[in-house]
Amino acid sequence: MDDRTAAPRGIAALARKVKSDSFQMASLSEDLRNKALAMISDALVENKAAIFAANEADLAAGTEIGLPGPVMKRLKFDEAKLRDAAEGLAGLISLPDPLFRTLLERELDDGLLLRQITCPIGVIGVIFESRPDALIQIASLCLKSGNCAILKGGSEAMRTNKILYDLIFGAGVRAGVPEGFLALVESRADIDELLTCHESIDLLIPRGSNEFVRHIMARSSIPVMGHSDGVCHIFADKSVDAAKAVPLIRDAKTQYVAACNAVESLLVHSEAAARLLPPLYADLTACGVKLRGCPRTLDFIPAEPAEEADFDREYLDYVLSVRIVDDLDAAIAHINRHGSHHTDCILTEDDSSAERFMLLVDSAGVYRNCSTRFADGFRYGFGAEVGISTGKLHARGPVGLQGLVTYKYRLYGQGHIVGDYAEGRKSFHFKDP
Amino acid sequence: MDDRTAAPRGIAALARKVKSDSFQMASLSEDLRNKALAMISDALVENKAAIFAANEADLAAGTEIGLPGPVMKRLKFDEAKLRDAAEGLAGLISLPDPLFRTLLERELDDGLLLRQITCPIGVIGVIFESRPDALIQIASLCLKSGNCAILKGGSEAMRTNKILYDLIFGAGVRAGVPEGFLALVESRADIDELLTCHESIDLLIPRGSNEFVRHIMARSSIPVMGHSDGVCHIFADKSVDAAKAVPLIRDAKTQYVAACNAVESLLVHSEAAARLLPPLYADLTACGVKLRGCPRTLDFIPAEPAEEADFDREYLDYVLSVRIVDDLDAAIAHINRHGSHHTDCILTEDDSSAERFMLLVDSAGVYRNCSTRFADGFRYGFGAEVGISTGKLHARGPVGLQGLVTYKYRLYGQGHIVGDYAEGRKSFHFKDP
Repeated sequence: MDDRTAAPRGIAALARKVKSDSFQMASLSEDLRNKALAMISDALVENKAAIFAANEADLAAGTEIGLPGPVMKRLKFDEAKLRDAAEGLAGLISLPDPLFRTLLERELDDGLLLRQITCPIGVIGVIFESRPDALIQIASLCLKSGNCAILKGGSEAMRTNKILYDLIFGAGVRAGVPEGFLALVESRADIDELLTCHESIDLLIPRGSNEFVRHIMARSSIPVMGHSDGVCHIFADKSVDAAKAVPLIRDAKTQYVAACNAVESLLVHSEAAARLLPPLYADLTACGVKLRGCPRTLDFIPAEPAEEADFDREYLDYVLSVRIVDDLDAAIAHINRHGSHHTDCILTEDDSSAERFMLLVDSAGVYRNCSTRFADGFRYGFGAEVGISTGKLHARGPVGLQGLVTYKYRLYGQGHIVGDYAEGRKSFHFKDP
Repeated sequence: MDDRTAAPRGIAALARKVKSDSFQMASLSEDLRNKALAMISDALVENKAAIFAANEADLAAGTEIGLPGPVMKRLKFDEAKLRDAAEGLAGLISLPDPLFRTLLERELDDGLLLRQITCPIGVIGVIFESRPDALIQIASLCLKSGNCAILKGGSEAMRTNKILYDLIFGAGVRAGVPEGFLALVESRADIDELLTCHESIDLLIPRGSNEFVRHIMARSSIPVMGHSDGVCHIFADKSVDAAKAVPLIRDAKTQYVAACNAVESLLVHSEAAARLLPPLYADLTACGVKLRGCPRTLDFIPAEPAEEADFDREYLDYVLSVRIVDDLDAAIAHINRHGSHHTDCILTEDDSSAERFMLLVDSAGVYRNCSTRFADGFRYGFGAEVGISTGKLHARGPVGLQGLVTYKYRLYGQGHIVGDYAEGRKSFHFKDP
């Protein structure tokens, strides 16, 4: 196992070894992959005392160097987190197999059959933050989808990550999964070498701060899946129901301010401002939210004046920008210009406004009358997510198992040659069953 | 129309203008898009004399500067090419709409409905070679899929491209499509500026030489779809039927040697070498193909000795590398190491060998007993293709309309907030219809 928790100079060699096992991964049966997940769950539960001890050591070290409260909170791995992890694994086992699904079946001509069938992507490099539970989730999602994973966790969680990795790796291999299915790299310097392994790594998923994701995207030719920003909007349309809107905006802003799907900018139709803004201001101010308004907003509520740059800002804090717009199309134009294509919501009682908003807003999530905080793989029923993508290619929005597979075209012939078709002796008949 | 055929310094402004029209494109009805395609077809047919005259001028200029024969052939746009283009447009009109398809529908809880619905990617930059018919095909695929396209054609075809563009643009706008649906840039210097427009361009599709595609990939942070190499293999398994194999390998090698899906390396099971190689050598030699063999191959046929580097080479010529391997797994390992993940074929009468090959070979196309030359959007029944992708994300293999769309998640609520679920007052029930 030592060569999988590699020294910095060995990363490229490690990645090649993982790559060479990745082909085998693509042929593992659903039963074997689910059996491995069950054995992983058992191993974690049976060894919980050792896991908690390692986590205590990480927490003690974190206290010593004065890690901030929120980081300490994410770092903690206790009975509750273990129970969630075991439940997550049970849920994942029960999800349908993302592999070997037939996306297309077409007879091109007599005896010439085309099948488009899902398969794993290959090797996925995941760089994640301080939460040790993320390691379990990512490793299990990759295993369920037949991918090999190379993981780099936060150094604060080093001891917890190491024991979780050892337990997961050991259980997987005992179940019959190839050794390359999971590797752990430990130092921050390893990341730079990972970024150069484009021959061995098919996809990078960086999780963490926006700066970090952008750093990764700029420095590697390996495709990256992630989100660079979460500047989410709510637009209160002319027909907004203010009684519904106030608690919804409060939820979208305050239910978890540090999340990428929290709302950062509120746009208000000029004809709705008088009835929405005063009660909203009272409610949000009572929750500790500071509002920053455009000049027209200040006619209705005593908000702080907003600067233009505030409308591009991801606060991740108890702050909300507010702008009054003259109509639906002005709201759509603002969102497409200032948003980050993550999740944007219209509050309206008008079906045609909702439809227009959903068609024209260019975001992964386009919502009507519900909190932007619903943008999440668990809440979408995906079982779990590897992240939320603000890119448009491959996977968009919360990414679950479906985002971890690709497909191959299988073509079954009986000696068929192209010359027969090019020279008119035969022709295709394209029959889908 | 002048601002769409822009001077070099105007490319970024042009791209922003196209981007701003792209949102509107996402809302065009299927009827309107199909009507525009029909009007484009009519405009091309009605103005064929002017198109042919422009093409004659390009051909005359090409003769003058001594363009090579194959380039001159691709450059020619005549009655036959026009007929193909009109047929292609008619076929495209009859294809099902790639937009507004519901990929997932799920009730998350009472009154909270999630729908995953296809939509255009946005703005696609396509850089293509000297074939003017490619301009028609790409413009029409993008229009059918609701995308805006910025096109850069080969300078040899400048006059033909310009008139084709003017006719397509004019017909599209008359049909009611926003002006930004199609732009043409003309100078090679414009490409460099296009590569920097990551705010406005969502996807680049470079078509042309491998060096060119790699150049684009290395120089832009915009996602690129394309194939970097076509090192395709055929593996003749132990149970190969030599009588079927010889014409099939001949087709895969010689039917069109310059194609990316032509076979470049043949792997032969050691137990099949004696019965396959001598008749194959006679057949291919008669067709002008030179064989380069590994040392063991030379025991069976008088091929030229192959160097190790020959097994990584995309000849695009009448040359074939031949290697004898000891078993199926050695063939699979060779292909995964030396191949380009494009299209690879096994010739076998054994079902389990075929299945193992298809599972373990990591390529967009995994074939049994048919020519690698079938790897093509037309032959797969996609109507047309924008290219063949050797990447694994988003689209793999021949890319038709499906590769030009992405999706949004629409979430319809009635004031739903996340706090109710986070605090246990409500729970999701996840019902798919």
